Amino acid sequence: MPDFVRPDREMTLGEIAALTRAKLRAGDPVERRIGNIAPLDTATASDISFLDNSKYLGDLSGTRAGACLITPRFAASAPRGVAVLETAHPYPAFVAVTRALFPTMLRPSSLYGVSGRATASHVHHTARLEANIIVDPLAVIGPRAQIGAGTVIAASAVVGPDVCIGRDCAIGAGVTIMHALIGDRVIIHPGTRLGQDGFGYLPSPRGHQKIPQTRRVIIQDDVEIGANTTIDRGATRDTVIGEGTKIDNLVQIGHNCLIGRHCLIVSQVGISGSVTVGDFAILGGQVGVADHITIGAGAMLGARAGVMSNVPAGARWGGFPAEPGGDWKRGVATVRRLVRRGRKSEKEPEGEGE
Amino acid sequence: MPDFVRPDREMTLGEIAALTRAKLRAGDPVERRIGNIAPLDTATASDISFLDNSKYLGDLSGTRAGACLITPRFAASAPRGVAVLETAHPYPAFVAVTRALFPTMLRPSSLYGVSGRATASHVHHTARLEANIIVDPLAVIGPRAQIGAGTVIAASAVVGPDVCIGRDCAIGAGVTIMHALIGDRVIIHPGTRLGQDGFGYLPSPRGHQKIPQTRRVIIQDDVEIGANTTIDRGATRDTVIGEGTKIDNLVQIGHNCLIGRHCLIVSQVGISGSVTVGDFAILGGQVGVADHITIGAGAMLGARAGVMSNVPAGARWGGFPAEPGGDWKRGVATVRRLVRRGRKSEKEPEGEGE
Amino acid sequence: MPDFVRPDREMTLGEIAALTRAKLRAGDPVERRIGNIAPLDTATASDISFLDNSKYLGDLSGTRAGACLITPRFAASAPRGVAVLETAHPYPAFVAVTRALFPTMLRPSSLYGVSGRATASHVHHTARLEANIIVDPLAVIGPRAQIGAGTVIAASAVVGPDVCIGRDCAIGAGVTIMHALIGDRVIIHPGTRLGQDGFGYLPSPRGHQKIPQTRRVIIQDDVEIGANTTIDRGATRDTVIGEGTKIDNLVQIGHNCLIGRHCLIVSQVGISGSVTVGDFAILGGQVGVADHITIGAGAMLGARAGVMSNVPAGARWGGFPAEPGGDWKRGVATVRRLVRRGRKSEKEPEGEGE
Repeated sequence: MPDFVRPDREMTLGEIAALTRAKLRAGDPVERRIGNIAPLDTATASDISFLDNSKYLGDLSGTRAGACLITPRFAASAPRGVAVLETAHPYPAFVAVTRALFPTMLRPSSLYGVSGRATASHVHHTARLEANIIVDPLAVIGPRAQIGAGTVIAASAVVGPDVCIGRDCAIGAGVTIMHALIGDRVIIHPGTRLGQDGFGYLPSPRGHQKIPQTRRVIIQDDVEIGANTTIDRGATRDTVIGEGTKIDNLVQIGHNCLIGRHCLIVSQVGISGSVTVGDFAILGGQVGVADHITIGAGAMLGARAGVMSNVPAGARWGGFPAEPGGDWKRGVATVRRLVRRGRKSEKEPEGEGE
Repeated sequence: MPDFVRPDREMTLGEIAALTRAKLRAGDPVERRIGNIAPLDTATASDISFLDNSKYLGDLSGTRAGACLITPRFAASAPRGVAVLETAHPYPAFVAVTRALFPTMLRPSSLYGVSGRATASHVHHTARLEANIIVDPLAVIGPRAQIGAGTVIAASAVVGPDVCIGRDCAIGAGVTIMHALIGDRVIIHPGTRLGQDGFGYLPSPRGHQKIPQTRRVIIQDDVEIGANTTIDRGATRDTVIGEGTKIDNLVQIGHNCLIGRHCLIVSQVGISGSVTVGDFAILGGQVGVADHITIGAGAMLGARAGVMSNVPAGARWGGFPAEPGGDWKRGVATVRRLVRRGRKSEKEPEGEGE
Repeated sequence: MPDFVRPDREMTLGEIAALTRAKLRAGDPVERRIGNIAPLDTATASDISFLDNSKYLGDLSGTRAGACLITPRFAASAPRGVAVLETAHPYPAFVAVTRALFPTMLRPSSLYGVSGRATASHVHHTARLEANIIVDPLAVIGPRAQIGAGTVIAASAVVGPDVCIGRDCAIGAGVTIMHALIGDRVIIHPGTRLGQDGFGYLPSPRGHQKIPQTRRVIIQDDVEIGANTTIDRGATRDTVIGEGTKIDNLVQIGHNCLIGRHCLIVSQVGISGSVTVGDFAILGGQVGVADHITIGAGAMLGARAGVMSNVPAGARWGGFPAEPGGDWKRGVATVRRLVRRGRKSEKEPEGEGE
């Protein structure tokens, strides 16, 4: 059965130690070649694994891994055949190795093995495409659209009129984009919808009148958006997703929202219209935010928080209606995990190579 | 950078006053031309804005708007250069102007600048299309399907066998429709799925047996459905969405549901199978409704209400399990806002022109 | 107006009695032909219906159905013209008849009336397709992909490089599949996304570093997945959906999850990364599960339960955070209904023909 992806390179333990600043145990083989990553329990002799939690000490004792990134206090527990790379921060080091072994996995590519523009793609004659763009079969690129160099447009994606997409982006299969400006190095996973009309009506007893949605969606550089997410264009202000923000699958972001830089928005979050979210905020899974709310920079919302009032910068809120303190502890597992690991990496500024 | 949409026309302040029944302040220029809409803080001399809330008085004092629709008690606060249009209901008046300036934005159009049937579309030879239909590239229209005059089928949409779509509809990019009858002036945004099998099994310890889903989806006139929403066809009764109902993104509607006329169903709502919803009901974001529930006409469910029992007509419920009264106040921001504005428009029967 | 589906056959009451082990009332016409199913209130003379609940006795008295599967205690209430088929388990018997009348509705088919490979499909020359495969127009099948005999790939679906799909599957319109191995008799409804990158980042104050997602999605035999659902591929372990499991619309399943066999996962459920779910578990609508949680075999989670800790096998939990007992009663309507009917069928091992 296919593995789909193979590492782009091998690394020696010496190279890994240099990349991660981990300390190779005296006597362990500097020249041993590592060809892949794996959890302790499934690893084989050419794999590297990691251990940062006593919960997995049982896996360590039985592992067949070729090497293990490990905190000093657990190092002595490694079986004899496993090369030991000691580091205070095994997980960030493991991520650094993963990124070094799989650089081509950092961005999705063609689903048809295309290098260039597939003959069966439909690029309007007024669209402007820079060099080195990959367009899969059955992608549609509309009038006056502009696409930057190095960008991949996957099969059946639809890019509407006048849309601008920057360089080195990956637009997934079946994505639709309209009324949008997209920066560089943006990744959009399959089935996501950008720039359609927001939900705007003037209700009345005679029926609800549709309000024209006249603005745009702006996606800044280095944003990643999961699958089947929906981001509506602005009604009277642009909807903006700030630089470096990462959005998961099945998220809804309403019209006129202003999402800051480097936020993390977990799956199935729903953000109503005209919400402002500060930089580095984290919204756990299934969080809901009422319209016209402001969430401060660095705030963290536990999974499924229902936000009905403004959240101060740096606050940890949870529950419904969301409030500070105890409720935060409900539903924060995923977020807490992310944050804990993020903090580790803060202390190890060169821990992640590429 | 492109603005994507431009108003289709300009209007003089005299025309706007006539349309909205607002009163132009004595001495203000009846012939001043308004070319666009904008919020107070971003408006320029050719834009019209509105003010109906003291919260934005600060924006008013600094605005550069050419005109402002404004309640009488705030009118004196407008800066000298701003033409003042007094009205008891500035927001419905602003919507009326928006609709008058952007009539082509009331319905999505081709994503490929097509007028007619794109050569790269796939229309089955037994399908029947009336005149003036736009079919984008890579749309698929199946055997015996019927499409009414003036309808737009966007790129990569798939219309299955025997599906009937009425006149002046807009079927978004990547939408799939099967086992469905669709009325006139229906708008369906990208990625929405209509008419697939409902979730019906006969569970057993030997595995769950699939139950054939033999009925249809009926979408009545003037319905609008957001992006990536899913509406299953009926198992033993048709799933029906009543005339004029508006459904947001990422909503789930199960098999056999009967949704009334002129309902508002906000993003991420989940409605289980065989639910009946009365006319003019409003369901806030992330509401969930258990199967076989009846929600009465005009009922309002606050955001994230979890409905486990029948809701009387006109009731305001919230919470989980949803109940009357106090819980309603949790999570109603979006809905309350919609309703408040709707009530205003009730009192001003001619406030929305077109 | 089209009905879209017609039964593939008719059955006599004698055949139905034999199939369901129901007892035809003395004197009722063994040779009467039944051509369709319907609820009591809409049934006509050629339809069969069922009654298992006193709530619908009113419908029974007025029905025009040709036959009714009915529990013995209600049998005397049937109007004179209705043939009565007595059985302790009318609903499973009704399902058995439905399956017998509509065998072709047990799996979606081509949306373009295609039998074979449409000329407008795009099958990479290195892909390997077995016999009797239907490929609709504008489907894309990538390099080295393998598709088993009898499988249908609907319009605009995209199958990525190296993907393996077994026999007698139905891949819906607009579905995208990558990095995935799919068993036999799997049904995937429109717009579902399989195998895209999971949500994996190493957060840091300088921005979040993307973690390569190197593993796969494995979908075992007889799985059915609803519309617009998202299942991410594994980061370090495969994401696995066990044999016979049924997943509804708009569900999110994160990377590295291990979902057991014969589970039922209702619409809008969100399962975070690295969750393990045991066989025959049931997750009600809008349930959320935090990462690294284990849910035991046969556990039932009421609608909207928020699971923050491990759930023992066989437990009934509900609420947020989810816990045993009383909270289970909140939000279990759909699930309880499914289970009740499942139990009935346990007692009637031959009650479901095909």
